[in-house]
Amino acid sequence: MVQQSDQEVVPDFIFGTLATEQQRVEHLKRQRRGLWHEPRLSPPDPSPGEAIRVEVSLGPEIAADRVSLYYTTDGSTPIGARGQALNGQAVALERVAVEWDTLVWGYRERWEGVIPPQAAGTEVRYIIEAWRSFDGYSVQAGEEGPRVFAFVVDRETTPAWIQDAVIYHLLVDRFAPDPGREFARPADRLGGFYGGTLRGITARLDYLAELGVTCLWLSPIFRSPSHHGYDATDYSQVEPRLGTEEDVLALLEEAHRRGLRVILDFVANHVSAQHPAFQAALADPASREVGWFFFDEWPHRYRTFFQVRDLPQLNTDVAEVRDYLIGHAQRWLAAGFDGFRLDHANGPSHAFWSAFRAATRAVKPDSVMIGEVVEAPALQRTYLGRMDGCLDFLLLEAMRSFFSFGRLSASQFESFLRRHFSFFPADFVLPSFLDNHDMNRFLWTVRGDRRRLRLAALCQFTLPGPPIIYYGTEIGLSQVRDVRYPDGSGHPEEARLPMLWGEAQDRKLLQFYRDLIALRRAGGRVWRDGRTPLVIDDAAGLLAYACGPYAVALNNGPEPATISLAGWTGGRLLLATEDDVSWQSRPASLSLPPYAGACVRQE
Amino acid sequence: MVQQSDQEVVPDFIFGTLATEQQRVEHLKRQRRGLWHEPRLSPPDPSPGEAIRVEVSLGPEIAADRVSLYYTTDGSTPIGARGQALNGQAVALERVAVEWDTLVWGYRERWEGVIPPQAAGTEVRYIIEAWRSFDGYSVQAGEEGPRVFAFVVDRETTPAWIQDAVIYHLLVDRFAPDPGREFARPADRLGGFYGGTLRGITARLDYLAELGVTCLWLSPIFRSPSHHGYDATDYSQVEPRLGTEEDVLALLEEAHRRGLRVILDFVANHVSAQHPAFQAALADPASREVGWFFFDEWPHRYRTFFQVRDLPQLNTDVAEVRDYLIGHAQRWLAAGFDGFRLDHANGPSHAFWSAFRAATRAVKPDSVMIGEVVEAPALQRTYLGRMDGCLDFLLLEAMRSFFSFGRLSASQFESFLRRHFSFFPADFVLPSFLDNHDMNRFLWTVRGDRRRLRLAALCQFTLPGPPIIYYGTEIGLSQVRDVRYPDGSGHPEEARLPMLWGEAQDRKLLQFYRDLIALRRAGGRVWRDGRTPLVIDDAAGLLAYACGPYAVALNNGPEPATISLAGWTGGRLLLATEDDVSWQSRPASLSLPPYAGACVRQE
Repeated sequence: MVQQSDQEVVPDFIFGTLATEQQRVEHLKRQRRGLWHEPRLSPPDPSPGEAIRVEVSLGPEIAADRVSLYYTTDGSTPIGARGQALNGQAVALERVAVEWDTLVWGYRERWEGVIPPQAAGTEVRYIIEAWRSFDGYSVQAGEEGPRVFAFVVDRETTPAWIQDAVIYHLLVDRFAPDPGREFARPADRLGGFYGGTLRGITARLDYLAELGVTCLWLSPIFRSPSHHGYDATDYSQVEPRLGTEEDVLALLEEAHRRGLRVILDFVANHVSAQHPAFQAALADPASREVGWFFFDEWPHRYRTFFQVRDLPQLNTDVAEVRDYLIGHAQRWLAAGFDGFRLDHANGPSHAFWSAFRAATRAVKPDSVMIGEVVEAPALQRTYLGRMDGCLDFLLLEAMRSFFSFGRLSASQFESFLRRHFSFFPADFVLPSFLDNHDMNRFLWTVRGDRRRLRLAALCQFTLPGPPIIYYGTEIGLSQVRDVRYPDGSGHPEEARLPMLWGEAQDRKLLQFYRDLIALRRAGGRVWRDGRTPLVIDDAAGLLAYACGPYAVALNNGPEPATISLAGWTGGRLLLATEDDVSWQSRPASLSLPPYAGACVRQE
Repeated sequence: MVQQSDQEVVPDFIFGTLATEQQRVEHLKRQRRGLWHEPRLSPPDPSPGEAIRVEVSLGPEIAADRVSLYYTTDGSTPIGARGQALNGQAVALERVAVEWDTLVWGYRERWEGVIPPQAAGTEVRYIIEAWRSFDGYSVQAGEEGPRVFAFVVDRETTPAWIQDAVIYHLLVDRFAPDPGREFARPADRLGGFYGGTLRGITARLDYLAELGVTCLWLSPIFRSPSHHGYDATDYSQVEPRLGTEEDVLALLEEAHRRGLRVILDFVANHVSAQHPAFQAALADPASREVGWFFFDEWPHRYRTFFQVRDLPQLNTDVAEVRDYLIGHAQRWLAAGFDGFRLDHANGPSHAFWSAFRAATRAVKPDSVMIGEVVEAPALQRTYLGRMDGCLDFLLLEAMRSFFSFGRLSASQFESFLRRHFSFFPADFVLPSFLDNHDMNRFLWTVRGDRRRLRLAALCQFTLPGPPIIYYGTEIGLSQVRDVRYPDGSGHPEEARLPMLWGEAQDRKLLQFYRDLIALRRAGGRVWRDGRTPLVIDDAAGLLAYACGPYAVALNNGPEPATISLAGWTGGRLLLATEDDVSWQSRPASLSLPPYAGACVRQE
């Protein structure tokens, strides 16, 4: 087991576009100074027959006296100017309010207009123009230049299975080598290939089924030069290191036979610089492929994923790019995948995801789309109706703040939970996680203290969102070094060590996770039907809440504590994070050692 | 005439609590993290018989599950805790919304409650508490500690005379010495005494009446060690350097005889450190007067006006302080003053101003209160019902940005004007000004170019708010040095040179101002009844707008321009800022030299 000193764990840093205060202020100012449509629709996910109210903000930089919207319902690109549609229909927006904005030190106007009700299956594509009646001034909405917005009018809802899922997130190269083989020991400890394969996963499906998870999330499997695969060179081919297409089909078949769904990590935002399309674009400025990317100045200056030159960003609003990505997504769904985890999902446009959802649902009606949107929840919520949900980065931050770093009190954490889950509609799924491949593992943040991992996991598994286990967490896999993000010299790969098998596994922890998953699954929808706080004690670090007939009690403090469950009678202890938790049913009370929790159920 | 080099004028800097971006961000974060009630009432100025909705924001720091309001209607201090009123009535607020706030990176809840309708003349005093049902946590609203909010239910409106006023703002020490005497030449050019007196003003009333202004605003006249008087030592006494109480009465009588109102600069926020109350507080920590101020640590650390130790801040929520200030305000109104310009009016509490207004209106029903609130207009608007209006610092900033510094285009300026005047209710008066005693004179900002002063003044005088002329602007008074605020070494006193009399006056400019004031007064309420843009040309810097039968055309560019007034027929030229403006009525067009403007009137 790794021994950690007290100096090694850096304060949490959730990598993303809004990770620092300066980024947040600049981001808000950019939005609020100009013409801003988030997109903001009401209702946010229009159903057939509903009129759609569109909201736009005009900041102090936009001195316009007219705002127009041009839309099409036939999939073509809307065109219009100065209130006249050249393709599609025009809607005149009206100024409805003037608000002061201290951050940009100016007034913002709110304008609204209505797109008439549409039939089921209609893709509404629209652009928004602010213009002036007295001169030629015209500006079109879009954060990085004019943008076509779109949504699809439908009655789609989130498939029930993802709401009830317990998800296992694994990196294919790091989970399991072929049966009978060992992991490689690459010279490049962080970036090297450890030799995990698809066949390795298939061989471990019994392990996963026994663990109790219901869904696997595979890291990218397409051809790629890297260990992680987030830089594909060909969306039609499986990376040979990981296996063959037959291996994929076998994995899917074996997983499905055990009742396990499988979702695939899918990157629509960017490709590898080695992707043939990018190579073609570099080779010829007149090539069609130049339009697949955002060249500010060909060939050297182009938009990328977080300034990584090897990861050029795709223009997903170009029909050819959209068709390429969606076509492959459809193909892999048809091959048997049950949905996608969408990498950096706030990169591609909202219009792209609307089209993606309609197309993938057509192939597989209960397939799911879960976005990685490491941004404000206000933005995450705009994907309602375009995705089934988003990875819950804000909950991650709050759980680690409360359980790892002590930066939130029990009442602040409880208050956060209440506000957070009331902010999102119930149909928008928020998979929860304690860690992932881009940050310190949870166990590392608590310096290897398994008590605190079990305590946090108990909380995670009794909250509304479907819980995700990052491979190895269930058997005590940790790190050797800190990822050290804040000073810029981060190596997220520190959190991607190969899975432990055999004697190296912490069997006690594994059994705890099995019991926890069983508890989660037995509760069914009770975890998302509302939570009632029972005990909140900031001084001692105690939090207890009820979900239907269950009560969960957490002692997030270094002292033993007794938690009385007022109003409770009877019941039995279902799960405890430590052996020496004791439960007395009349009067109902739990004795919890330091950093211990338990779940009881009323008779 | 002063010659200015091109290097001497610094970019504008409007001194105040939100002058820099950092101040704004910190200010917003302070408000939004905690329990925030601006005060935010609906309606903002309750009339008898109207229910009053109260809004509160709970930021991420406030993990409460209850919000209560306690109020009294008998003038006593409301007391309550945990939902129970100990004095007065309790109102339970309800959680109505959860919103995400990227700036503070957390959720904010909006809570609302209703205070029942009250009879005319009722002073509603209230406190707001956020608390937790499960422990002893309790926090009371107020930016700097618990605060009693208050409002008075009445049918008061803004007196018509201030809406129609043309105001002349003068510094008593710098306007006119006793008749037959000259200004002194103090060794301390900036801070010294120039010997202006009340008798000097009285002797110049004919000058002011002839100019056409309808209201004088006198800088503070109470006993004070400084030339400006914003640091009083005795609110009952006239500063002997300036004159006697008899001189005040004579000035008021002579002004009123000429139809001139007189308002007095009144400082409720702070006093001189030499004020007997502060001296008493310093002398004895057990003295009553210690409570008049905010001692963080007696006697050395106390709250001040902008860190100036000589200006200790008064606690206007203390009954004795309130009575002291309001008593003197009433006395000076009874002596004949027509109202007050309220220095740093966002220092004292809203409750204080509600009481101040009720008490001063009782003495003089058509007296006015104009606040100096150098802050966001959203805050200025909260004084509706407590004051008659606020000095329009935001318009000042926009006018100087457009006319002096070229930082706003014509369309941005026009857009600002529209948003700005629609943001405030018509009953809230916004006196306009091009400069004051705390910043570079307008004429200095345009390097002495009188064309640009006349142009800006024409605009100022044809906007809704009653225009203010800072003494000397009308005859070409400027500066010798820049105030140089931004680098911290500012001397606002550079903008307070003594008035010019006799041959030193620019008679041509004076005549222009006389004509401009006559135009303003002839138009009556037409200037605030709505403005219609006629021409906006960013490239040339042209702006023209109509107010009723008037059209105003401004050429804010360095080239001659012809402005056609489409839809206009006939009319005559009423006022031009330059001699060589020419007007042709059919078709209606104005030829304007560089930096010239004109006003025409339809027949």
